[in-house]
Amino acid sequence: MCVRCIAKARTAGRAVQALLQGWQAPAGACRTARCFSSLPEPAVDAPARPNELEGKVAHPSLLNEDLLKAQYAVRGELYMKAMELQKAGKELIFTNVGNPQQLGQLPIKFNREVTSLVVAPFLLDHPAVASLYPKDVIERARKLNKMFGGAVGAYTDSRGNAGVRQEVADFIKRRDGYPSNPEHIFLTDGASVAVRLLLNALIRDSNDHILVPIPQYPLYSASIQLYGGTLLGYNLKEQTGWSMDFNEITRSVNEARNRGACVRGMVFINPGNPTGQCLTEDNLRDLVKFAHQEKVVLMADEVYQPNIYQDEKPFVSAKKVLGDLGVPYSNSVELASFHTVSKGVLGECGLRGGYVELTNFHPGTIDELYKAVSINLSPNTVGQVAMSLMVNPPQPGQESYEQWKKEHDEGLASLRRRAHAMTDGFNSLEGVTCTFTEGAMYSFPRLHLPPKAIAAAKAAGKPADTFYCLQLLEETGIVTVPGSGFGQEEGTFHLRTTILPPEEKIQDFVKLFQDFHKKFMAKYA
Amino acid sequence: MCVRCIAKARTAGRAVQALLQGWQAPAGACRTARCFSSLPEPAVDAPARPNELEGKVAHPSLLNEDLLKAQYAVRGELYMKAMELQKAGKELIFTNVGNPQQLGQLPIKFNREVTSLVVAPFLLDHPAVASLYPKDVIERARKLNKMFGGAVGAYTDSRGNAGVRQEVADFIKRRDGYPSNPEHIFLTDGASVAVRLLLNALIRDSNDHILVPIPQYPLYSASIQLYGGTLLGYNLKEQTGWSMDFNEITRSVNEARNRGACVRGMVFINPGNPTGQCLTEDNLRDLVKFAHQEKVVLMADEVYQPNIYQDEKPFVSAKKVLGDLGVPYSNSVELASFHTVSKGVLGECGLRGGYVELTNFHPGTIDELYKAVSINLSPNTVGQVAMSLMVNPPQPGQESYEQWKKEHDEGLASLRRRAHAMTDGFNSLEGVTCTFTEGAMYSFPRLHLPPKAIAAAKAAGKPADTFYCLQLLEETGIVTVPGSGFGQEEGTFHLRTTILPPEEKIQDFVKLFQDFHKKFMAKYA
Repeated sequence: MCVRCIAKARTAGRAVQALLQGWQAPAGACRTARCFSSLPEPAVDAPARPNELEGKVAHPSLLNEDLLKAQYAVRGELYMKAMELQKAGKELIFTNVGNPQQLGQLPIKFNREVTSLVVAPFLLDHPAVASLYPKDVIERARKLNKMFGGAVGAYTDSRGNAGVRQEVADFIKRRDGYPSNPEHIFLTDGASVAVRLLLNALIRDSNDHILVPIPQYPLYSASIQLYGGTLLGYNLKEQTGWSMDFNEITRSVNEARNRGACVRGMVFINPGNPTGQCLTEDNLRDLVKFAHQEKVVLMADEVYQPNIYQDEKPFVSAKKVLGDLGVPYSNSVELASFHTVSKGVLGECGLRGGYVELTNFHPGTIDELYKAVSINLSPNTVGQVAMSLMVNPPQPGQESYEQWKKEHDEGLASLRRRAHAMTDGFNSLEGVTCTFTEGAMYSFPRLHLPPKAIAAAKAAGKPADTFYCLQLLEETGIVTVPGSGFGQEEGTFHLRTTILPPEEKIQDFVKLFQDFHKKFMAKYA
Repeated sequence: MCVRCIAKARTAGRAVQALLQGWQAPAGACRTARCFSSLPEPAVDAPARPNELEGKVAHPSLLNEDLLKAQYAVRGELYMKAMELQKAGKELIFTNVGNPQQLGQLPIKFNREVTSLVVAPFLLDHPAVASLYPKDVIERARKLNKMFGGAVGAYTDSRGNAGVRQEVADFIKRRDGYPSNPEHIFLTDGASVAVRLLLNALIRDSNDHILVPIPQYPLYSASIQLYGGTLLGYNLKEQTGWSMDFNEITRSVNEARNRGACVRGMVFINPGNPTGQCLTEDNLRDLVKFAHQEKVVLMADEVYQPNIYQDEKPFVSAKKVLGDLGVPYSNSVELASFHTVSKGVLGECGLRGGYVELTNFHPGTIDELYKAVSINLSPNTVGQVAMSLMVNPPQPGQESYEQWKKEHDEGLASLRRRAHAMTDGFNSLEGVTCTFTEGAMYSFPRLHLPPKAIAAAKAAGKPADTFYCLQLLEETGIVTVPGSGFGQEEGTFHLRTTILPPEEKIQDFVKLFQDFHKKFMAKYA
């Protein structure tokens, strides 16, 4: 870690010592530490760090400082409190994580039937197999079993099975109309792992900055910290539906660069998490042009691409916009696009299947990333199977198609109705405003809290939204994440809930929330 | 990353500048950079790093240096060459990774039957379910389905499902006779992830050293480099069956500490990878006492604990020895023990299920590790199910027991026969000596190569064992890993093969090897 810094410190240390001993710099020498590298190494005064505290080598004060500094709000104070209450027997409603099946969403049957046979391929030859599984399920399982060489129990290539990567490339081509190279696709244990892979490679030291929207998904802030980089936030404008302001972003990048910062990458989340906005093609063109002009790697968090709840702004991928813009954008902007099986109507969070597609990346960099993923040997195979089934659903005419289509369409329609119910519920409250959830899985209402509540929070040593969310949790059992965990404009307060409570319970959920809110507002009026 | 180093470099830089400008250190000032921290910050001469090369921000020369420096031999030059040959149509025998099912080992049927129902829980109520699955399989699947709240598609707690963690704790208690706390067990996507979690937390900068056996498993060298630490190797003595020499280890630790190094952790691998030796209780007692005396965190890579091929040295866990030794060892030595579903007779590499048990760790450190794993949300659930089934096999009297026992015992017996066949095959060769594979999955023969071969390798710019393994690959299709990838005593040459080729083919495999070796030796005689 930071070998150059250490070398620099050592060299500078040598220089200090030499100067103290009366050494004179040659005339005209520049005044950087580098010029002193030929000087003798000074004696070490003391070991740099203690190795033990209170009898513990792995004492929490003696761990990797970047790990200690990393914050992860989704499972932060609120979550810990929730765990404590759950242990004590309190019934909780978890809306803190986009975890659909935890709240009763059923998996897509076809996908699980196929998976059921892929993990037990010997059943394919069982005489009774057709009594339990539809014909196209058996066929698909046979095909997948062959693709995995008959052995989902074996490590695959570290980038994932070549057949599945080809299927993903075909899916991307169908979606965008532009070719996709399976050699530039990495399958991972969920998209988070892919995001972290990229950040870890891009970030060299704390001078390397990554542009991240504020509010943001804490995966970014936590990982950037963990890899020793610096998050450079750009505010989304709540008053215009969480839009991007490129004038402000450019200003912020210039200011950072004037400070000597290296701005390496830019994250955007479309549809937005936690903010739920969808980007238009115009927005995406601006983004691509910005990345080209400012020379940053574009990290497109597109994991919510199937979760769209309005018709005006359908999902458009950054890859498609890149292609539409043509040269010089299409052949130069370095784009990493992330997708997952955890979201959409699938909601297969537990299976951990994700991918990243790399466009315009240097082949040597792809080799380095390949090496990096090789250290963990292989992504899990069942997640890869889930990915294959996501990008290749049953087709019209196949036995499972009607059932699949029904589950898919009803699932999406239900999410759309819930997005409306949730946003409407929040907007009906005094002191709450909530941008419509155009996509993704979250509502991010703004809480206009009374001064007394803010003062009480301050007295309790907590951000005012954390203070609110803790009371909400204790009184109603609803687990949310305070806006302060995502970052938000100074002086504003928010919370994030998912829109995932089951449809038959969503009105009760909204009612529970409303009752609490009224009481809270009255208490601190 | 390395915030302190940067601060130190800056402070030292200021001091250099101040001294150049004629500033005098106060009388009696100590000569460390720290004393200069109140001096004004010098102007930045140039931005620390370029952001772009050949039009690429993510240019391979501009990535994280620790990533660039990390080597991962198991999928290194040999593997890349193998991939190239495979693409060109050459038939290969992969003995480079311990990946049993890739070479035809069948999964344990009971485990896969249960998994098949757990991923499709709706089948549990299907009228035909009993025609395909034994009764105890259905029961076990019901139990696991309940344990996962009916939803293996949901994220679990970031440490893994609480029920599975309890089962692992019970397994450890049965194995060792000492209690195990499920709150100190983390389930992970394979043991590699758990190892990396610990290394990432322990290592703060390049002055933090981790003791690792030489030869070692490259996961350690690659991860320590990736996290910016320093590997401090200790040689295993080949002439005494790859034994540990504590005099030498102590000498090496003292020497490193005299250089100012912080020695934070000590890895050992039992049974050994790539070396195949098993540690005795005496060895383990020495290890625990050493860790206590020298204050290092003990990292026990015990993933091959079921793979034992002799009766003299059964597997004994470090946790048991810790307990047997009693106070002060049992209540102070910080021990992390790793295990997996990928090895043993299961060989479920593709499912990615592992765990780490932390003993005597500070509660605050366990919290920090919990936070770290939370950033990835959840280990995959099917790997957790595989772990549950590994620690809880069918019991006598249950319908699947006899079948399970037969598969288990025959699998282990076959591995034992193959360990013998492989070692005997190598020892029958002129210029090859091979320590018996007492455990794990590998043979690590020493190649006594003729001077002409060494010279030819040198001329080709390759370590002599890489040179040998490349020719072996090209002529026979056998994929191995050269000893240089694991580290080895200077001037010795080895290679690693697994003992996993199917039993009916192992004599052919040995013959293929022998023929090549004779030709190679004749060529360079």
